[in-house]
Amino acid sequence: MRQEIRICGFGGQGVITGAVILGKAAAVYDGLIACQVQSYGPEARGGAARAEVIIADGQIGYPGIHTADILVAMSQEAFSKYGREVKPDSIIIVDPDTVFSWEVSQTVHLVRSTKIAEGLGNVVVANIVMLGALTALSGVVSHEAILAATLASVPARFKELNRAALEAGIAAGMGQGDAVTHGRRATAGR
Amino acid sequence: MRQEIRICGFGGQGVITGAVILGKAAAVYDGLIACQVQSYGPEARGGAARAEVIIADGQIGYPGIHTADILVAMSQEAFSKYGREVKPDSIIIVDPDTVFSWEVSQTVHLVRSTKIAEGLGNVVVANIVMLGALTALSGVVSHEAILAATLASVPARFKELNRAALEAGIAAGMGQGDAVTHGRRATAGR
Repeated sequence: MRQEIRICGFGGQGVITGAVILGKAAAVYDGLIACQVQSYGPEARGGAARAEVIIADGQIGYPGIHTADILVAMSQEAFSKYGREVKPDSIIIVDPDTVFSWEVSQTVHLVRSTKIAEGLGNVVVANIVMLGALTALSGVVSHEAILAATLASVPARFKELNRAALEAGIAAGMGQGDAVTHGRRATAGR
Repeated sequence: MRQEIRICGFGGQGVITGAVILGKAAAVYDGLIACQVQSYGPEARGGAARAEVIIADGQIGYPGIHTADILVAMSQEAFSKYGREVKPDSIIIVDPDTVFSWEVSQTVHLVRSTKIAEGLGNVVVANIVMLGALTALSGVVSHEAILAATLASVPARFKELNRAALEAGIAAGMGQGDAVTHGRRATAGR
């Protein structure tokens, strides 16, 4: 088993923190092997951010990612850049309030992470909402592991906010109703 | 130019955060290319932590590290594991309050990051003290860049604490007096 996960968006959305928590969930709490990478190039100075996690049940040779098995995109720029670096059966999750246009043959899962986080009182936990959705949709780590890793990674006074964000994300990922778009699609209407 | 930096210690010392800030300093503020990796294996469950940063002025092919050009060790276990994975001219920085024994032919720079952070009121900024020392000793990023990246990465109410920690670390790194041990040495006496 080797799962390559890419989380991308713009700077300040916490994509690196999300990836660090996911790696910790896998390695520390689920007993897997994980490797977590961020590559910063000229795009980092334009506000784009991306982070990657490789989760495996054995040794990880090459620590880089080519095409993601799971892609979470939190900005249009990020989706435009990485939306095609996926596999035919990849799990793709986007926030339709920050990604406006997509056209891929895979199922695209829509999770309104920014809106959900705002509803919980703080937009900064949108990344944690996405972690919950990713966990529910992919099963790459257990719910217990992602919760434990999240709580271990945030200051005490933010634990309940982050727990709520994670649970809302899991619920959004599990709710296969209007949160999920199947098939080819472009322009979500803005 | 390609510099490979490894920061290691035990879980909770913020080695990953330190590495993320260093990568951001290089890429966002100094205009370099950076890649930042953490690999979690069975050792992560024992509390050991390590994170790596590769900084280059051109494309980074392989995102992994073999032998570090700069090693920061914040626990004995980490130093025992990674202290030999260095180059003949590597810069090695250890906290002599948490690393008790070393025997290498390189100069070992002693920075009392835990003690300095305690003196500033919060042991959690020991990692930032180490970042300051690393910057002063290696010049791998500019002082301006590491300060900007640090301040951009911490909550508003911790900015002054982190600024103080960084400056104390820079001072410790620049003070080439009793903070630096030259030559072979073992057992710091505890």
